[in-house]
Amino acid sequence: MSGVADPDPWNALRTLRTGQRVELSDGRGQRWAGTIVPRSEMTGERVLVLKLDSGYNVGIRVEPTFTFRRPSAEPTAPGPPPPVAEGPVGGHGDGPWVALLTTGGTIASRVDYETGGVRPVQNEREILEFFPELTSAGPVRIVPVFDRLSEDIGPEDWEALAQRVVDAFGDGAEGVVIAHGTDTLAYTAAALSFLLQDLPGPVVLVGAQRSPDRPSSDGPSNLAAGVEVARSARWGEVVVVMHSGLSDGRYAIHRGTGVRKMHSSRRDAFESRNGPPIGFVDVGGVHVTEPVRPASPGPPRIDGPLDRAGGLLWFYPGLPPARAQEFAAGLRGIVLAGTGLGHVGSAHLDWIRRAIGAGTVVAMTTQCLAGNVDPFVYATGRELERAGVLYLGDLLPEVAYAKLLWALGHAADPKGVEALLLSDVAGEFHWRHTAGGDA
Amino acid sequence: MSGVADPDPWNALRTLRTGQRVELSDGRGQRWAGTIVPRSEMTGERVLVLKLDSGYNVGIRVEPTFTFRRPSAEPTAPGPPPPVAEGPVGGHGDGPWVALLTTGGTIASRVDYETGGVRPVQNEREILEFFPELTSAGPVRIVPVFDRLSEDIGPEDWEALAQRVVDAFGDGAEGVVIAHGTDTLAYTAAALSFLLQDLPGPVVLVGAQRSPDRPSSDGPSNLAAGVEVARSARWGEVVVVMHSGLSDGRYAIHRGTGVRKMHSSRRDAFESRNGPPIGFVDVGGVHVTEPVRPASPGPPRIDGPLDRAGGLLWFYPGLPPARAQEFAAGLRGIVLAGTGLGHVGSAHLDWIRRAIGAGTVVAMTTQCLAGNVDPFVYATGRELERAGVLYLGDLLPEVAYAKLLWALGHAADPKGVEALLLSDVAGEFHWRHTAGGDA
Repeated sequence: MSGVADPDPWNALRTLRTGQRVELSDGRGQRWAGTIVPRSEMTGERVLVLKLDSGYNVGIRVEPTFTFRRPSAEPTAPGPPPPVAEGPVGGHGDGPWVALLTTGGTIASRVDYETGGVRPVQNEREILEFFPELTSAGPVRIVPVFDRLSEDIGPEDWEALAQRVVDAFGDGAEGVVIAHGTDTLAYTAAALSFLLQDLPGPVVLVGAQRSPDRPSSDGPSNLAAGVEVARSARWGEVVVVMHSGLSDGRYAIHRGTGVRKMHSSRRDAFESRNGPPIGFVDVGGVHVTEPVRPASPGPPRIDGPLDRAGGLLWFYPGLPPARAQEFAAGLRGIVLAGTGLGHVGSAHLDWIRRAIGAGTVVAMTTQCLAGNVDPFVYATGRELERAGVLYLGDLLPEVAYAKLLWALGHAADPKGVEALLLSDVAGEFHWRHTAGGDA
Repeated sequence: MSGVADPDPWNALRTLRTGQRVELSDGRGQRWAGTIVPRSEMTGERVLVLKLDSGYNVGIRVEPTFTFRRPSAEPTAPGPPPPVAEGPVGGHGDGPWVALLTTGGTIASRVDYETGGVRPVQNEREILEFFPELTSAGPVRIVPVFDRLSEDIGPEDWEALAQRVVDAFGDGAEGVVIAHGTDTLAYTAAALSFLLQDLPGPVVLVGAQRSPDRPSSDGPSNLAAGVEVARSARWGEVVVVMHSGLSDGRYAIHRGTGVRKMHSSRRDAFESRNGPPIGFVDVGGVHVTEPVRPASPGPPRIDGPLDRAGGLLWFYPGLPPARAQEFAAGLRGIVLAGTGLGHVGSAHLDWIRRAIGAGTVVAMTTQCLAGNVDPFVYATGRELERAGVLYLGDLLPEVAYAKLLWALGHAADPKGVEALLLSDVAGEFHWRHTAGGDA
């Protein structure tokens, strides 16, 4: 059927539903064929978003001179999403359900066809329009928590997220999935690992490295794998589920306290450091190969608060001691990302001694991002240890920072903070390295 | 023969030569058997250092009540080292020679048997006593440059080292090896890559992850592989040569601008990021698989100076913008290690805009330590780019920092500094990623 009766094709095109097929021509030789993709409030006026047969999405500004046709035999295309409850209470379907907390980020983002960039979704229902397969194994309840890119998510948000996780379990969720921008996903995973105790089911953070307008987007498959873990695993751990390789079909389950984003764009960017992932998800289901904490009978609780008076400083050659001292000023604790086994230039010993003398906790990690720190191998380490620097085994700098904020919130005096930092709260010390790790 | 005529065994033991075998008893059931290891000025009084048959070295404080014997059939043991010239001029042997610049660090360190820690050698001749095989293929001239652990090596030292490299080539060296502590070896390699131009031969940095008293020490084999590259390769690159796996026999050749220490203790800790190593060294010799810059007819020159008014700041969630601003205050340039494709929290935009307005160069890298930064994917990136933040492709944060000091030393105005930062000076941009790198 042809739709050229109206002089302006936009009047008809704007009424088409998601999933309907259309062929568009600009009348000067440019043609597009594809299916309609959901619009958002941010999609520009007169902009039609099509998923092309190539798999890519394009935004097309429809001029009055354009023509279009809709093939009479409508091909199979996704219809409107299945009915799914929104919000933490109420819901659709019977039986066990999984809570999906959304925070923004690529996995819950849309291309803004005005600017060409990617922006968070404005409406959580769009997620299920993109991912209709999510509910195939059982109900998923969407809980919008906030809506921003992950570089803007910080310690207050970690506490808010922890509260929503506890609420979801309180409402009866079997497991909780958190869709989170990948930039700071590992920081959030670490913080939640310390904040959440007595979990009756898994808390699974998932993200997307590729935006949803690309055929290579990893969002849908990561989300599906995360939901599968949340639905089927019966342990009480905070984990990250992301692609374990470049192709779909295998997803790594990383412990929240030992994972890091190690590539800016690859789909398999997330790596467990200092040990293997907890397990994997593939077509055969969820496979766990490492020890996990069993699900608690509950109720889950927040072991807060965090105290933001902690910092993280990476040492580098040429860093003036005065600048480092200034950075640490006013903090109750600071994590240093030192070199190698945990060193900083010996010129830094003075300010570190003074800071410790004034009651600041100074903790050491390694900027190598793998392996233990050890103050007893080199002279510099021994002097730092003697000055009172706390060596934190194989904690990643970012994990140590999240743990520091948690420890500062739980103890008033430096000795108490140090004791908490050295205790194993959430499986964060990996004394058993992978084979050859210390060879 | 027995040595108990003198009432104090120390008087005889102190005269024994390196490599001689001795059996020692404390008269109360403790016995040691091994060969004498070189003493240094730091070896404690009355302390005998033995390499045990297990391969480990021990320091034994010899009490007057001890007894010892020397087996009459002296087993094969390393004798005194072959004669080798010291210093940058003069020398031993004919034909092509390699300069070995020592800076301290594990590869040139000794166990201090008083404290149990590892300290730099006091005498560069000790290196050749430990590594007699170094000169098997030709002369090596030792050039002591300085003697400290690598966490204390900074920008002034990079310039001093560059001068000694130029001097060594000027004296006729075919290639230059720099023995360097591994903690900051990659920083030095990056800085030398920018400082040294028109190289008539390779400059090879080598280090040791394990101290020389351990049978698993990688120092000798890394040093031998590094000398082989310096002797046989005819290109003008600054490279790092270290174990490519846990066993001896294969050494990776990393370009100085793309390598990082990625484990605090493993022997294969050094990794080329954003691409494969340049090549490998194995029993078959030196194999190069990536493009290298051919040796220049020379003369080599230092393209200095460095300007230390640059800094490096790692972003993390919860970093207060005021603290970041204070850290950057007074600097002519700062490298940010942002998240993902190169982001920081949007609350940091204000101080970044003000800093750029005041003439500070603000450059972006990724704390993922692999992959490109890209300001055009997400809204935050676009805003940072619009504010004037310079996106540095796939430069590692540490490499970007070294390059920043170099660029600040070469241009007075921000635009000039930025142009230098974006230019390819030493093969530091790896636009061609490994297969699948962007999949």
